[in-house]
Amino acid sequence: MKVKITGVGLYLPPKIETAEDIAPKIGKTAEWIVEKCGVKERRVSLIDVDKMGAIAGKEALGSNNIPDLIINASGVPKQTIPDTSTFYQKAMGFEGVPSFSIHCTCLSFVTAFNTASALISTNIYKKILIISSDRGTRGRNFNEPESASLLGDGAAAVLLEPSKKDEKSELLFYDMKTWPSGAHLTEVRGGGTNKHPQDLDTTYADNLFTMDGPGVYKIARKQVYKMVMKSLKYTRLFQRDIDWVIPHQASGKAVEAYVSIGRFSKEKVISTISSFGNCVAASLPMALAITIKENKIKRGQNIMLIGTGAGLSAACAILKY
Amino acid sequence: MKVKITGVGLYLPPKIETAEDIAPKIGKTAEWIVEKCGVKERRVSLIDVDKMGAIAGKEALGSNNIPDLIINASGVPKQTIPDTSTFYQKAMGFEGVPSFSIHCTCLSFVTAFNTASALISTNIYKKILIISSDRGTRGRNFNEPESASLLGDGAAAVLLEPSKKDEKSELLFYDMKTWPSGAHLTEVRGGGTNKHPQDLDTTYADNLFTMDGPGVYKIARKQVYKMVMKSLKYTRLFQRDIDWVIPHQASGKAVEAYVSIGRFSKEKVISTISSFGNCVAASLPMALAITIKENKIKRGQNIMLIGTGAGLSAACAILKY
Repeated sequence: MKVKITGVGLYLPPKIETAEDIAPKIGKTAEWIVEKCGVKERRVSLIDVDKMGAIAGKEALGSNNIPDLIINASGVPKQTIPDTSTFYQKAMGFEGVPSFSIHCTCLSFVTAFNTASALISTNIYKKILIISSDRGTRGRNFNEPESASLLGDGAAAVLLEPSKKDEKSELLFYDMKTWPSGAHLTEVRGGGTNKHPQDLDTTYADNLFTMDGPGVYKIARKQVYKMVMKSLKYTRLFQRDIDWVIPHQASGKAVEAYVSIGRFSKEKVISTISSFGNCVAASLPMALAITIKENKIKRGQNIMLIGTGAGLSAACAILKY
Repeated sequence: MKVKITGVGLYLPPKIETAEDIAPKIGKTAEWIVEKCGVKERRVSLIDVDKMGAIAGKEALGSNNIPDLIINASGVPKQTIPDTSTFYQKAMGFEGVPSFSIHCTCLSFVTAFNTASALISTNIYKKILIISSDRGTRGRNFNEPESASLLGDGAAAVLLEPSKKDEKSELLFYDMKTWPSGAHLTEVRGGGTNKHPQDLDTTYADNLFTMDGPGVYKIARKQVYKMVMKSLKYTRLFQRDIDWVIPHQASGKAVEAYVSIGRFSKEKVISTISSFGNCVAASLPMALAITIKENKIKRGQNIMLIGTGAGLSAACAILKY
């Protein structure tokens, strides 16, 4: 599908919380956090997801640019109804732009990217703004040291447009799979009809993030490797032909696996986990936007977007930037 | 886009709650409810949204059919993470089918239908199962008589596939618009990062549905009419060429407006509001599935799917069945 990233935006909350800051809250040492999760520090946002996303969205759009469609691709919404895309639009000062949300937790961005590419390829829209904005720190359960040490806040946005005839930009490959047998491994059990906030038996912990990190890693390692191999076979590319691997920043170990198991050279695999933690759906587009803004990614290069999400799901996209 | 509905499914919970049953809870009479909202009775589900949706999904799929993709298109999820599509898949006994959610409250189904059509047209998927399942009765605020009298539970599913060369089935038109100035008119303010269940100042009412029905109707009436006119102009069809109008069942008044303001003849406008109430995102596909299952809709006929949703959004699709 002939699509091109024509703008990126970021919101990195200014407030920094270090491993030392969080250590006493979870009864562990800063060394334990860095060793176990790979997160030296994370950002904590004092503004809500809509404002965060709108800042990133405005930057991706540039001046005087109004999108045809706004897709929210985040892990946790601002509120149950309406969906967060409306609030981004409100905060950006637009009115009348169609907007909706795509949700598959940490893979929301990759899935939205593929979906937006299909909507552009079928000429339904020409200028789609995808925004991922998450405040994972709002849902931390400090009684669960590992997951609590992982989460951070941040937002990123990408503007997607059709690529012109003489441009190489293209989505070369996309695949996703979901295994509900792993649904219990990563959850926020509250917030919906199952454990409704009004139910007397809904506990405090039900409304917080819980993850069996080792359990996810065990399944993910194998399935993600399979997906990498499938994507390379389909595109007839080798590991060496992929210029940048932008993974979801699930954990230090998960990102490192693209080197040790995925066999991509270390300098190609973008890791932001140490500075920003796992920012749920925003992690992957944040890593992408940071790398683009640092002018590392050149037009025509091959980028792999890859990761796992609650579900349990895995997804992979290869795009020519 | 050359797509065809190849299966539909329904789940109508057996438990019926009448206007008489609900009247004392809201301090109004049954007559007031029917006069104000047009809802004589609604269903109340004793099973959760995933089980409801899975029953509808299985029926839409028929025997021995596994979809390429499952899209959840509902108003309120089972839980915050993972998204409900995973739980549908689990309840249907599948494993490894990609799944995600599209959310724009009551317009989730129409938006998912258009998105699925784009994904089919670009050959990414060939057999997409869209499931809408909502338990609006879980979020009723009995201190808000009008909205509390409207909501009902139900689920519906549609299987979408490419239409064959000699088949007429096609999505002829789709449009959506969102006006965030109306975001406050329909809300569940809780359940996300804004009024998190853990926040001490999140009230009981924040987690329940609130709607300014007259406020929505005032904007919706005008905007929906404009969208009807635009859809007819684009497709070069007249009101008389539309065989069936399947609206979101927002309220008795909202459905009736397609006759009085939209100028469609009454027998073409499908109304299920009296028996099932407003089932959030499930209302529209429920009305569609009921009409298809009654063998009223014939292949080659023109169907308009139309409605409003929290956001405030309006959407319209015209398809040749």
